[in-house]
Amino acid sequence: VPRTFNLCLLGFGNVGRALLELLLEKRDALRSEHGIEWRITGVATRRMGWIASPAGLDPKVLLEGSVSPPSLCARPAGVPEWLRAAQADVLFENTSLDFETGEPAISHLRAALEHGAHAITANKGPVVHAYKELSEVARRHGRRFLFESTVMDGVPIFSMFRDTLPLVEVTGFRGVLNSTTNVILGGMEAGKSFADSLRDAQVAGVAETDPAADIDGWDAAVKVAALALVLMKYPLKPQQVERHGIRHLTGESVRAAVAAGRRCKLVCEAERSAAGIRARVGPEEVSLADALARVEGTSSAITFYTDVFPALTLFEENPGPKATAYGLLADFITAVCRADDSMAR
Amino acid sequence: VPRTFNLCLLGFGNVGRALLELLLEKRDALRSEHGIEWRITGVATRRMGWIASPAGLDPKVLLEGSVSPPSLCARPAGVPEWLRAAQADVLFENTSLDFETGEPAISHLRAALEHGAHAITANKGPVVHAYKELSEVARRHGRRFLFESTVMDGVPIFSMFRDTLPLVEVTGFRGVLNSTTNVILGGMEAGKSFADSLRDAQVAGVAETDPAADIDGWDAAVKVAALALVLMKYPLKPQQVERHGIRHLTGESVRAAVAAGRRCKLVCEAERSAAGIRARVGPEEVSLADALARVEGTSSAITFYTDVFPALTLFEENPGPKATAYGLLADFITAVCRADDSMAR
Repeated sequence: VPRTFNLCLLGFGNVGRALLELLLEKRDALRSEHGIEWRITGVATRRMGWIASPAGLDPKVLLEGSVSPPSLCARPAGVPEWLRAAQADVLFENTSLDFETGEPAISHLRAALEHGAHAITANKGPVVHAYKELSEVARRHGRRFLFESTVMDGVPIFSMFRDTLPLVEVTGFRGVLNSTTNVILGGMEAGKSFADSLRDAQVAGVAETDPAADIDGWDAAVKVAALALVLMKYPLKPQQVERHGIRHLTGESVRAAVAAGRRCKLVCEAERSAAGIRARVGPEEVSLADALARVEGTSSAITFYTDVFPALTLFEENPGPKATAYGLLADFITAVCRADDSMAR
Repeated sequence: VPRTFNLCLLGFGNVGRALLELLLEKRDALRSEHGIEWRITGVATRRMGWIASPAGLDPKVLLEGSVSPPSLCARPAGVPEWLRAAQADVLFENTSLDFETGEPAISHLRAALEHGAHAITANKGPVVHAYKELSEVARRHGRRFLFESTVMDGVPIFSMFRDTLPLVEVTGFRGVLNSTTNVILGGMEAGKSFADSLRDAQVAGVAETDPAADIDGWDAAVKVAALALVLMKYPLKPQQVERHGIRHLTGESVRAAVAAGRRCKLVCEAERSAAGIRARVGPEEVSLADALARVEGTSSAITFYTDVFPALTLFEENPGPKATAYGLLADFITAVCRADDSMAR
C-alpha cells in the first residue's frame, strides 16, 4: 500500500521547479518501486507568499506560475505555522545561501524537524553552520536532515560515503566544484578578458548579478568546509579555508597557461595534517594529465584520498537543473524509506 | 549490544587474506560504528580442506597459514555440511571464475542462502549466470546475495545505484575494466612486444598462467554482462557481448597510436538500442582528451550515461588487494545492518 507524503517547497526557483518536474516524471516509478505517493501541500516564495493547501496543489498550475494565492492560501505568521497549515511531511528548503551565518535557512530546517517533517536542502549554509545541531534535532524527532544537492548537484557524495562506503576514512580531497568560475575561465581561455567573460556568464544566467560569492572563492570554500565537516569529521568554517579567487587573473595569463600545455582551474582541496586539516581554494595551473584539466563548463569533479582506495574520483559532465533536483528527490526517498543507521549507534 | 557473526571463507587466496586483514584492521570501528563483532568459524581451501570451528579460529594463525587441520577440522561431505558445522552467518565465496556456467560458485552461494547465511562473492560467474535466481533465494530466506567486488574491486558500483541513485535509469556505460590487459598494453607502449609484456605481467602476478580469459576479453565481457544485467535490467550473457581481445595487437601498432596522440585501451561498452542492448569489448585507440586515456596500470574507470546525469564517471587509481577486500566488507555490513529495500516491493 503506497504511503502519501505532503511536500512543502520553500523557495520555488529553478531548482524547485526542476524538482517538481522530476517528481512528476518519476511519479509512477516512485509508487511502484518505493511505494511513495506525494502531493504538494505548501509553496512559499517572495512573490507568491505562503501557500498552504493540505488537499494538495495542482503541480501543473504551480509550474505555470498561475496559482491564485487568495483562493488557496493561508497567510501564516511564519514557517512553523505554514508547515502546520500544510501538514508537511517533508520540507524542501531552497532559499539562497548566506555563507556567513547559514540563516535563515537553519531556522527553516529546524522548524521543519521540530514540526516532525524531514528537512532536505540544496543550501550549503546550514551544513557548514549547523550540521551537528540539525542532525541532532533530526535524530531527536526521528526525522532526517539531508543535503546531497549541496555539492556537485545531485551526484552522490555524502550518500556514497554514508551508505556505500562504511568505515572508509577520507584523508583528503581535491576537485573543481564551482561551475561559475569554471565557465568564466573557459571564456578567458577562448580569448575574453575576465570582465567580458564574467559579463557573458551573467547574461547566460551562470553568474549572479553580484558575482562575489563565486569569483572570490566563497562558494567553493563553503563546499570544502561542508565536505571536511561531514566526510572528515573536522569542524572547519569557510572562513578558515585559505581562499584565493579568480578576480585578479587576466585573459593573457589564462591563455599563457594553455599555450604551455596547462589549464587554469579553481581548485578546491583539503588534507589531514598534524595540526588538523589544511584546506585551500585557489586558481591553479593543472597539467593536461590531471583529471581536473578535463572539467569543462558546468561540469565538476572530485578525487577522494582514503585509507582503502588510494584515489577515487567522481566526474560529472554537463549537468542540467535535473541533476540538482535529483539530489533532493534521492534525499526524499532516503528519508521516507530508510532507517537512519546512525540512530543505532 | 554488539551482535557476533560467524564468518566462513570459501577460498583463502589473496582476496580472502586481504579481507581477514581488513576485518582485523577495522575490528574496533565495526564494533563502535555498526555494533558488529565477528569470528571466523570456517575456512575451506584445496590445501587446508574444510575447516569448521564454531568457537572461532585464530585469525593470526590463519594468516600465518599454520592452521593444523586435524586439531580444528571437521571434514564434511560438502558445502552445506561445512556451513552447518561452522554455524555460518555469512559466506564469503572467493573461488575462481568459470565464466561459461558460473559453477560451482552458484551452488556454494545457493547452499549458503538455504542454510540461512548471507552470500557474498567477488566472483562474477554467479552474477551473470544466476543473479535472478540467487536474489530470489536470498529474499525467500531473508538474507542477501551481494557482489560489490566483482567490478572495479570494491568501488561502489552496484551499491551506488542500489542505495544512492534510486530511480536513475542507466542508458549505457563505457569503461576500462580489465587491469591485466591494461598492464600488458602499458608494457607494449613502453617498448615491449605483446609476448614479452604478457610474460612480464605473468611474472609480476598480474596475468595468470593461462591468460586467455583476460587477453581474449572474456573477463571484460563478463563484467559488461553483469553491469547490463543488474544496472540496466537486461539479461545479457557474456557470449552475447561482441568481443575482441588484444592477442593480435603488435607493440608497433600500440606505439604508433601513442605517436599519433592516442592510447590503445581495451574498452568495455554497452548502450540501449531499439533491439535491446548493444554491448562490446575491444581494443580502441582513445584520444588523450578521453578520461579512459588516463587509466594507467591496474587502475580502472567507468562512465555511466543516465536519464538524470548525462555522464557520471567513477575513476579508481592504483587499487591494492585491500580495495577488493573492502567490497566484501562493505557487503557484509550492508547484509547485517540494512533491510533489503527491494523486499518491500
